[in-house]
Amino acid sequence: MLDALFRPKSVAIIGASTKELSIGNRIIKNLIDFGFKGPIYPINPKAEEIRGVKAYPSIFDVPGPIDLAHMVIASKLVPAAVEDCGKKGIKAIIINSAGFTEVGPEGAALQKDFLERAAKYGIRILGPNCQGIINTDPEVRAYCNFTFTKPDPGFISIVAQSGGVGELIHQGFSQMGIGTRIYASNGNASDVSITEILEYLGKDSGTRVIVLYLESLKDPKAFLEVMRQVASQKIILAMKAGRTAEGAKASSSHTGGLAKTDIAIELILEKLGILTFRDEGELCQAAAAFASQPIPSGNRVGIITNTGGPAVIATDVLVDEGMKIPTLSEASIQALKGKLYPESAFENPVDVLATADAGHFRAAMDVMIAEDGIDCLYINFVTPFFVNNEAVAQQIADVNRQRKKPIVCNLMTDPQQWKDVVDILKKGGVPCYTFPGTAARALAALSRYAALRSKDVGIPKTFTDVDSGKVASILGKAASDGKTLLSAADVYGILEAYRIPCAAWKMADTAADAEAAADVIGYPVVLKADSPSVVHKSDMGGVAVNLTDGKAVREAAETMAKRIGASDLRFFLQKFEGGGREVIVGAKAEPGLGHILLFGLGGIYVEILKDVSFKIAPITEIEAGEMIDSLKAAALLQGVRGQAGVDRTGIVDILLRVSQLVCDFPQIQEMDLNPVMAFADKVVAVDARMVL
Amino acid sequence: MLDALFRPKSVAIIGASTKELSIGNRIIKNLIDFGFKGPIYPINPKAEEIRGVKAYPSIFDVPGPIDLAHMVIASKLVPAAVEDCGKKGIKAIIINSAGFTEVGPEGAALQKDFLERAAKYGIRILGPNCQGIINTDPEVRAYCNFTFTKPDPGFISIVAQSGGVGELIHQGFSQMGIGTRIYASNGNASDVSITEILEYLGKDSGTRVIVLYLESLKDPKAFLEVMRQVASQKIILAMKAGRTAEGAKASSSHTGGLAKTDIAIELILEKLGILTFRDEGELCQAAAAFASQPIPSGNRVGIITNTGGPAVIATDVLVDEGMKIPTLSEASIQALKGKLYPESAFENPVDVLATADAGHFRAAMDVMIAEDGIDCLYINFVTPFFVNNEAVAQQIADVNRQRKKPIVCNLMTDPQQWKDVVDILKKGGVPCYTFPGTAARALAALSRYAALRSKDVGIPKTFTDVDSGKVASILGKAASDGKTLLSAADVYGILEAYRIPCAAWKMADTAADAEAAADVIGYPVVLKADSPSVVHKSDMGGVAVNLTDGKAVREAAETMAKRIGASDLRFFLQKFEGGGREVIVGAKAEPGLGHILLFGLGGIYVEILKDVSFKIAPITEIEAGEMIDSLKAAALLQGVRGQAGVDRTGIVDILLRVSQLVCDFPQIQEMDLNPVMAFADKVVAVDARMVL
Repeated sequence: MLDALFRPKSVAIIGASTKELSIGNRIIKNLIDFGFKGPIYPINPKAEEIRGVKAYPSIFDVPGPIDLAHMVIASKLVPAAVEDCGKKGIKAIIINSAGFTEVGPEGAALQKDFLERAAKYGIRILGPNCQGIINTDPEVRAYCNFTFTKPDPGFISIVAQSGGVGELIHQGFSQMGIGTRIYASNGNASDVSITEILEYLGKDSGTRVIVLYLESLKDPKAFLEVMRQVASQKIILAMKAGRTAEGAKASSSHTGGLAKTDIAIELILEKLGILTFRDEGELCQAAAAFASQPIPSGNRVGIITNTGGPAVIATDVLVDEGMKIPTLSEASIQALKGKLYPESAFENPVDVLATADAGHFRAAMDVMIAEDGIDCLYINFVTPFFVNNEAVAQQIADVNRQRKKPIVCNLMTDPQQWKDVVDILKKGGVPCYTFPGTAARALAALSRYAALRSKDVGIPKTFTDVDSGKVASILGKAASDGKTLLSAADVYGILEAYRIPCAAWKMADTAADAEAAADVIGYPVVLKADSPSVVHKSDMGGVAVNLTDGKAVREAAETMAKRIGASDLRFFLQKFEGGGREVIVGAKAEPGLGHILLFGLGGIYVEILKDVSFKIAPITEIEAGEMIDSLKAAALLQGVRGQAGVDRTGIVDILLRVSQLVCDFPQIQEMDLNPVMAFADKVVAVDARMVL
Repeated sequence: MLDALFRPKSVAIIGASTKELSIGNRIIKNLIDFGFKGPIYPINPKAEEIRGVKAYPSIFDVPGPIDLAHMVIASKLVPAAVEDCGKKGIKAIIINSAGFTEVGPEGAALQKDFLERAAKYGIRILGPNCQGIINTDPEVRAYCNFTFTKPDPGFISIVAQSGGVGELIHQGFSQMGIGTRIYASNGNASDVSITEILEYLGKDSGTRVIVLYLESLKDPKAFLEVMRQVASQKIILAMKAGRTAEGAKASSSHTGGLAKTDIAIELILEKLGILTFRDEGELCQAAAAFASQPIPSGNRVGIITNTGGPAVIATDVLVDEGMKIPTLSEASIQALKGKLYPESAFENPVDVLATADAGHFRAAMDVMIAEDGIDCLYINFVTPFFVNNEAVAQQIADVNRQRKKPIVCNLMTDPQQWKDVVDILKKGGVPCYTFPGTAARALAALSRYAALRSKDVGIPKTFTDVDSGKVASILGKAASDGKTLLSAADVYGILEAYRIPCAAWKMADTAADAEAAADVIGYPVVLKADSPSVVHKSDMGGVAVNLTDGKAVREAAETMAKRIGASDLRFFLQKFEGGGREVIVGAKAEPGLGHILLFGLGGIYVEILKDVSFKIAPITEIEAGEMIDSLKAAALLQGVRGQAGVDRTGIVDILLRVSQLVCDFPQIQEMDLNPVMAFADKVVAVDARMVL
């Protein structure tokens, strides 16, 4: 348990300093200012007191037990200090000091040293090279951190893989008037991991929403396991940075880790029901809505405005974000007509006009709250000087307190002149924004989350008609032979074992055998050279397509044998399936995350238009359908210009079987069925590749 | 000239009120508070003074001349009051009152009435139903407006087709500490138009940047003519709202205008060298950079940071926005190594570390300013309590004052605790932002503008080998015949006259003639029924493709004649051109704007992938190339998978000739060459349609 770290009963500062502009002093100030509930023990051999708190020459001089220690001492002194902490019975240490793995081998050795000592005593370490934690729980009030943002108590906890971004989000919250529950940033992450912190927050009853900033995952498997649980308990809003090659490079230069521009983490987050953002500002602004608003039951927005243009902007953005702006029911429109100015706009957006007073706003809100066709409310509120804006704000706050439907407010005002309006809305828990687009995106995030959580993709189907024993045997033999690229016979053997439909095939040792095999398969056929020593078959003239009779097969095989001249040469014959729509099914192992499945239309759709979709295995039937439908060119599979559509069920079946195959045999590093020929009545793989 | 409106020497308020919370009172207060340089004349028959200013019973009692009058009276009183203004010699009127076209026919009649009276006296009208104007020029200080945002003097003027959005932008500027020059919002726009205001601002020496909010254009032609001039004199940042069908509907409900979801306005803005935005927040944030920073000479960013994660985020966003993050030169890296902490990151982003002081920041900035490979600077500046942040801010401000390269700063601080830091940067003219993404997008906007302005697309080529007389004659005859859809002979006649290559064709009256014509064209041919009474040829069996000999042609023509049975039936024969890459070239008239040209790959690329590009005619050779290259599937035209590329010069030639054709003959409402067959060595239109 990380209680000693997040809910310490007492804190010692090893390296406490009398110098005001130092970390060893600031932490003491922060603990005092924030009203830490337990004793604070500055450790300094020379000082009597620091910031008015009695100091001790060493931790052994501290009379009572110590839960948590900060270390703000030179890195070379850390291992011995950790040893002392162990002897004193300290349970957790925040190492603020830098000078470890991030500076090279010497630092890495120090890190190894202190970790071994900590492990011996069962001490948990946050950091090194980290800011620390903050807990606003009134029973704790732990500001174990040297930063400067003093949060109000709230329901959102922040976990960041970068102290800088953590502080950025924290400062954003502070300026928006959003409270924080727990804040943590773990620097070099030598011991306590992001995953462990998330697990802890999952169990923290005071945390309703978790905001997570990630650049990479050290142990994706552990993350995945923990987050399955946490994401079902808490709303999680996440951002993964280092998306671009340049961003990943910038990330690895400061985290010391290996980063790459992959999509695996975003896929995992989606699969876990975690809402992802690509803009840190948008994340903070959405968090303000999540902190106070219920989750809507749909994406239908009622817009109330007292000014025209900003409603146009809001409408554009809401529609861009996938929201609907339905026309109100006739009953609602009639109800509004009795209560608003006659010149008002009664459709949705409802324009109550700039001269609208509190009664007009209230009438419009009441109608929207009662209207079945509306899931959430967007309010544009400009504060004209000739209106009692405080009364309007009071009505918005009152309706918001009903918590019937989520509300966001784009408040267009001068916060100096209308301080009371700002305060009334803030006290009423109304999330307020200063641009219509910002408010619209925050509302859309609530709705996106609702869709993500209400989505039931079912559970992955398990095919029982597969022969996993045969696959195990093929893969076992290939592994013991030291193969990484499987032979055609192995690949197609595996596909057959998992009943993944592929074009009829046979192996042959001689040209004559090849002709005989082709006779059995039926013409036309494709002939391929199959030899461990021939990697680039096409370049070596090792592929002959559309052979229409036995003579052609024999001649092609003879020519191939002469040209390649490898002693281990065999022939792979396969039925030539022309005229279908080419699709691609692939899978690629991501260490710790399982496999990413890929689906796309073949040829230029993949090569030029990059029109592909991804999911993490295992997938369900619904997810397989989503992979197909999310292609930009999905309509091609449904049939266009009079052409028949392709066998969708067949594609779904292949996707599900490939998903099961790579889950059953995680040693498959990569596999491609490329192309799979999709016809109206069948789907068959006509080329396949598998790497261990 | 609109000087009486924007630089009034005296202002009367007709409808001045003693009631503090009224528009007729607020305008007087605003004029006084803002320090208006001329006399203020409240007009009120019952009051002696208002807000301490002597009031007059009527404008005729005012002793001196009056430049500008506000009207804050019931709409039915406006026409007579305008007449009075004419008699008094007033030159401009801001009608704040509502109750005109926006409320129906009665209001529209009042509007017509006052406009006629104003015209008689040469009075210019702003509004009705508008806020008014603000001019911060120290010689004027005119706050002729009832809103509440008091701007600092600045170089940015704001013109908005919505008072609400104008005020939103204005308030955004105020909160970001950006000054304003002139502010105008013209409500119902009965007389003074957005275009006229822009023309005025173009000549205003105090305006450096214009921020423009548009929902629709009343007179696009006038806009286009004026803006050619204005955009060459001023930096213009624009946003067009009502982009979505729903947004356009919301717009028309409050503007009373007809809006549609077209792209013509955005194309026009781009063509004029106006930088467009789709997010009002981003526009305001970019404006902060434009207000103080020079335009960069390229898109290469140097990043300086004292915290890791925010640099990763900034890098991601900069790359997304098309910026480059080049590695520094070896000389620069060496220079930095001598001056920064040894643990710093010396690549780009340069991480000076959280403990960096003013000297470290200065060293990094000096290197970036001197480095040839860097066009602009992005600075992440978090304010650790243990650093002299004021000194760092001072260095950033000092380097910024050099105005050598544009600088933006993502300032991560608590503005209460580090008020001096905020002030130093503000006084130094450093645009500061609170999120890395926001700062990155503002910097990218500067670079986008640089690219837009430095782009030299050349001048449209005029082909002299065209026979415009022949086209004029064909179109004239078609018009006098009352045709809107041109016959095949007319269409191909026009294409030939403009030397737009199309497949060889002939007309024939009988089946025998058709066979003879086909013999001349050469096989295979396409045969089409051509009759004014046959609109949907394909549905009627009026098209036969790939006919390979004379007999097939004759039989197809006979069958067609029998099936269609129209007495005016003729036959259109055309060489069948198979096997090329299908492309589409189209043009569509946009009232007042000329023609929008369209280019795309045929078939599913247009139908399913919507992969098309647009430009406003006339286009230049470079623009034609851009139309081709901006397709997502552009690589298909260059040749993929061993296929040869297509004749790019031929496509460019067709685009240029179509552009010239529709410019020469604006009566062509729509034309499509669909498909055009593009081969490696030639490009020919094989089907064409033209509508008058």
